[in-house]
Amino acid sequence: MREVAIIGIGMTKFGELWTKSLRDIFVEAALKAIDDAGVDHIDSMYVGTMTPGLFVGQEHIGALMADYLGTAPIPSVRIESACASGGFAFRQAFIDVASGINDIVLAGGVEKMTDGADVTYALSTAADQEYECYHGITFPGLYAMIANIYFHKYGASRKHLAMIAVKNHKNGALNPNAQFQGEITIDDVLNATMVADPISVMDSSPVSDGAACVIVTTVEIAKKLGKPVVKVIGSGAATDTIALHQRKDILNLDAVKFSAERAYKMAGITPTDIGFAEVHDCFTIAELCIMEELGFCERGKAYQMVEKGETALEGRIPINPSGGLKSKGHPVGATGIAQIVEVVEQLRGNAGKRQIKNARIGLTQNMGGSGASSVVHIFKIE
Amino acid sequence: MREVAIIGIGMTKFGELWTKSLRDIFVEAALKAIDDAGVDHIDSMYVGTMTPGLFVGQEHIGALMADYLGTAPIPSVRIESACASGGFAFRQAFIDVASGINDIVLAGGVEKMTDGADVTYALSTAADQEYECYHGITFPGLYAMIANIYFHKYGASRKHLAMIAVKNHKNGALNPNAQFQGEITIDDVLNATMVADPISVMDSSPVSDGAACVIVTTVEIAKKLGKPVVKVIGSGAATDTIALHQRKDILNLDAVKFSAERAYKMAGITPTDIGFAEVHDCFTIAELCIMEELGFCERGKAYQMVEKGETALEGRIPINPSGGLKSKGHPVGATGIAQIVEVVEQLRGNAGKRQIKNARIGLTQNMGGSGASSVVHIFKIE
Repeated sequence: MREVAIIGIGMTKFGELWTKSLRDIFVEAALKAIDDAGVDHIDSMYVGTMTPGLFVGQEHIGALMADYLGTAPIPSVRIESACASGGFAFRQAFIDVASGINDIVLAGGVEKMTDGADVTYALSTAADQEYECYHGITFPGLYAMIANIYFHKYGASRKHLAMIAVKNHKNGALNPNAQFQGEITIDDVLNATMVADPISVMDSSPVSDGAACVIVTTVEIAKKLGKPVVKVIGSGAATDTIALHQRKDILNLDAVKFSAERAYKMAGITPTDIGFAEVHDCFTIAELCIMEELGFCERGKAYQMVEKGETALEGRIPINPSGGLKSKGHPVGATGIAQIVEVVEQLRGNAGKRQIKNARIGLTQNMGGSGASSVVHIFKIE
Repeated sequence: MREVAIIGIGMTKFGELWTKSLRDIFVEAALKAIDDAGVDHIDSMYVGTMTPGLFVGQEHIGALMADYLGTAPIPSVRIESACASGGFAFRQAFIDVASGINDIVLAGGVEKMTDGADVTYALSTAADQEYECYHGITFPGLYAMIANIYFHKYGASRKHLAMIAVKNHKNGALNPNAQFQGEITIDDVLNATMVADPISVMDSSPVSDGAACVIVTTVEIAKKLGKPVVKVIGSGAATDTIALHQRKDILNLDAVKFSAERAYKMAGITPTDIGFAEVHDCFTIAELCIMEELGFCERGKAYQMVEKGETALEGRIPINPSGGLKSKGHPVGATGIAQIVEVVEQLRGNAGKRQIKNARIGLTQNMGGSGASSVVHIFKIE
């Protein structure tokens, strides 16, 4: 296996991009990434997107994007793992370069959610159609069950979830690509409209359009090009039962745990080596559970880390410096790649007002559904 | 890169499988493949499927299938390239094993098309939503334009297309997994209901349910397991404009040409080395154009090969010994893997009444839309 690095990043602003179509926003992000990499060609493409068929009536996304980007006839294929589609697309690009099949590979993610489709139905297809969706439950309800049990078992409360939303909005306010760039208060969250008790609308990531792309190559080529070498030192993916009720303990996100263990093993490091992380806070409660599965603290203690400010931008281990899904936005297929864009910006020292001090090793964690799939990557600046 | 082989194959019967769901048929095919391989575990999975979101309201297919197959928490991801989703899923499994990331990988394909969704709309999402579908054209119409120009330029006629349908049904009649197991006549095709002149319903592949899976590993492991070694000697993928009208010449399927060139180059062989092939005859005209792009004859001469019987089971280069999409059926995401199942059966000498004599090197070609994506693999028995 060859050593792999990222040499280019690009993303659109996330938000309600009504004047641009699915292909427009992908091409915008891809051209930025290619420009940033300074390469004159790419050899293959992986495009993560969850359900453009239901959102805008378009499948065959790999070919479509190669066509509109002007890179056809290179191989280009779409990768789907619900809201983890972007992260899995990156993993395929990583494997492609590592294998020696291709040298310069684009990994992208895109979703266009605001064009009029039934968003709640489209997103529900990430759950078990036969045992969950059919009976009417959607994701806020699934995560609400996780939150209630977490509260009951560990003594956390809605205030702790609110602290996560407040922190992520504070970071997002410093991110020019974020959908929401305004700070909020604990009371804003506590008084927000309830979606599924205890998950309020301010505990939930928004409906968004957006795209993000990165250019992946070998460490050897990255050095020849004179680029800052952001190495991919770990990649892990895992799955779990798709339906929440089939798990032994619904507080355990096993796919997150296993994907992280595999990535740590490949990198030869432990959770204490991670300087900062972008994680999948589709709902505030998810950030807590993920922190525990990633090994950043003991089980049931994550809310205490939040309370102490340890996950703030200036904290011991900043979580979601970009603003996370909550504030940056969550165009589902794009999210996994946008997390990587943020980590690369931090490692390069280009994150502006939200720059983390001494950023050396960063982690991304991207999740599908209520945790049926998860993918973790670890990056290090040389 | 490590050398790669196939050690297990399995598929469901193709047809209208109303008593089984999407997950049921995938698991059935996967268990057969695992049984056939004789392995006690797999390391990762790639599942090709075109649009289960539109067909049955289910995405997140990688995780779903790992869950129901009982292989979670292994990595499992869905691959989409319209009707070439299966072939691209196999390519990702090939790259995964070749890279050294995983040793034993399942590549599968599945589609459930007969459960009541609007099939014509769902399939149209493989075309360009903004420039083709929006104006009402669907795939029979697109391929009808190709056929009319082919007739005009090269002097072929509906009778030649009918010969392809007759040949493929003759082969399919010998395939217990085929959707249609009856022979047809030239007159049956010529007198069939017209869909889009000159494409009749008997020039068109059917709407089908079905799944197919293969187990991929290294040549080294295959030998240790004592399995017949069916080596993957070439893999090529390519893309083209998604909209037909944007091509310089709509008779040229450039993605097929480039994907074949790349596969031949990797294999170090030429078209004359190919003993037989499974190709993407979604409509009869496609089989003609593909034969030419694969280099089996000069441009404009494929219909003469068909006329001479050179592509029959006992001909010089049998095409679609399985019955092809026309007779075996075309559950779109499953097709690319089912082609590989057929090639492996032929190379192992297990194809029963449709066995090709001295089968040594076989090729599969799987295509998306009107040729915007294509993937070619070449297999050799040791």
